[in-house]
Amino acid sequence: MRYKITFSYDGSKFDGYQKQKHVLNTVQGIMENALKYINNDKITKISSSGRTDKGVSAFMQVGHADIDVNITPYKLKRALNSLIPDSIHVIDVEEVSNEFHARYMAKEKTYIYKVNIGEYNPIEKDYVCQLCKPLDINILKSEIKDFIGEHDFSSFCSNQDKKEDCRRIIYDASVKKTGNYIVFSFTGNGFLKYMVRIMCGYLISVALDKVEPGKIPYYLKNTEKKVTTKTAVATGLYLKEVKY
Amino acid sequence: MRYKITFSYDGSKFDGYQKQKHVLNTVQGIMENALKYINNDKITKISSSGRTDKGVSAFMQVGHADIDVNITPYKLKRALNSLIPDSIHVIDVEEVSNEFHARYMAKEKTYIYKVNIGEYNPIEKDYVCQLCKPLDINILKSEIKDFIGEHDFSSFCSNQDKKEDCRRIIYDASVKKTGNYIVFSFTGNGFLKYMVRIMCGYLISVALDKVEPGKIPYYLKNTEKKVTTKTAVATGLYLKEVKY
Repeated sequence: MRYKITFSYDGSKFDGYQKQKHVLNTVQGIMENALKYINNDKITKISSSGRTDKGVSAFMQVGHADIDVNITPYKLKRALNSLIPDSIHVIDVEEVSNEFHARYMAKEKTYIYKVNIGEYNPIEKDYVCQLCKPLDINILKSEIKDFIGEHDFSSFCSNQDKKEDCRRIIYDASVKKTGNYIVFSFTGNGFLKYMVRIMCGYLISVALDKVEPGKIPYYLKNTEKKVTTKTAVATGLYLKEVKY
Repeated sequence: MRYKITFSYDGSKFDGYQKQKHVLNTVQGIMENALKYINNDKITKISSSGRTDKGVSAFMQVGHADIDVNITPYKLKRALNSLIPDSIHVIDVEEVSNEFHARYMAKEKTYIYKVNIGEYNPIEKDYVCQLCKPLDINILKSEIKDFIGEHDFSSFCSNQDKKEDCRRIIYDASVKKTGNYIVFSFTGNGFLKYMVRIMCGYLISVALDKVEPGKIPYYLKNTEKKVTTKTAVATGLYLKEVKY
């Protein structure tokens, strides 16, 4: 039986999402250990909507796993939560058909990026990017909308594989300011490696007057020109939602 | 010269505020080590507005220290921030007269207590009380106002010393709900040991229907009767402000 597993995790507590040889403390590795235990010691893979970088958290990540033993979704949720550490939490488990695929069938993903532009705050240092410099929200608002639409995002990602198709659709890109906090939000059909962090880093550089505004359309057309602005740090980035 | 030092810290990263023998990782201990280094290796005490329990954070704590070496407030702030770990942050340093006392001259303190009444959230487990049970905001609102005023809070504290004067004035006590979060706020001229956590634990017990509502005035009069409800956990409690 295939199960759709919706879970959240604190990325600051792990060495990234993706399972790696010789790295024990990954979200995927820990989830798969728990699944193996439940699935009569059979190696059991969890396929998620996509990996997240080291330091990135997920309010909502979705994966699927095939389990041979007869177990209700409710009991699978409880069993997983009793086996995994408290930095990961299974929110929901559903039985799905064998055609369901957490990665290929994801229609829409939303990432948010939180930045503190006020005084350094030690309480949230692992959860919010501590930029601690003022940013002009109007510049950010006017720039960010240029990302909306279907574009080749080669300039705004870290693609080693030159043949990878870098076309993605950004359905919505917005930014809001609440007190000393700036929150960027991007909803799209998919995101490339470091893409959200590179876009946020670029926007921050424009607002800090390090880069000329109005150049995003240029980079979206001239896909051989990588932007050279600083990639925003992982701390502050959250996978907020995955829709199917 | 006496300096008023305003600082913040992440209580989840320390073994409490107060310096203790054989416990190295306390906020006070770390601050005093840094002060000693700046003050030509002379043992230098920081007197704060009050200790906070293990696990309790401060958005704003205030202390004072006497330093013999000639240093501007700006340089003292920078020197302290370069010496302390990133889980503590000095927000401001001011020169004050020798009559200033961070504890005795504090006029008003505000504590807030954050509770998640929705699904368990691993990302905030060290920062918000994960109650994960629904609470009726109207019951909380109607109960909490009975704490306002000058009362003997013996029933709502953990006083070992029976002779301690437990009269305190609560200027304001309120509670609000935003989504699945409940935030309690208490402003008073001072708080006794575990007082805020005992009051919050009591209010939560009433909202969970474990205790009859309307009994706070009874406990504030019958000071020999300790409330027997669960003390709320330290996680979620923040010293928000100290006024002079």
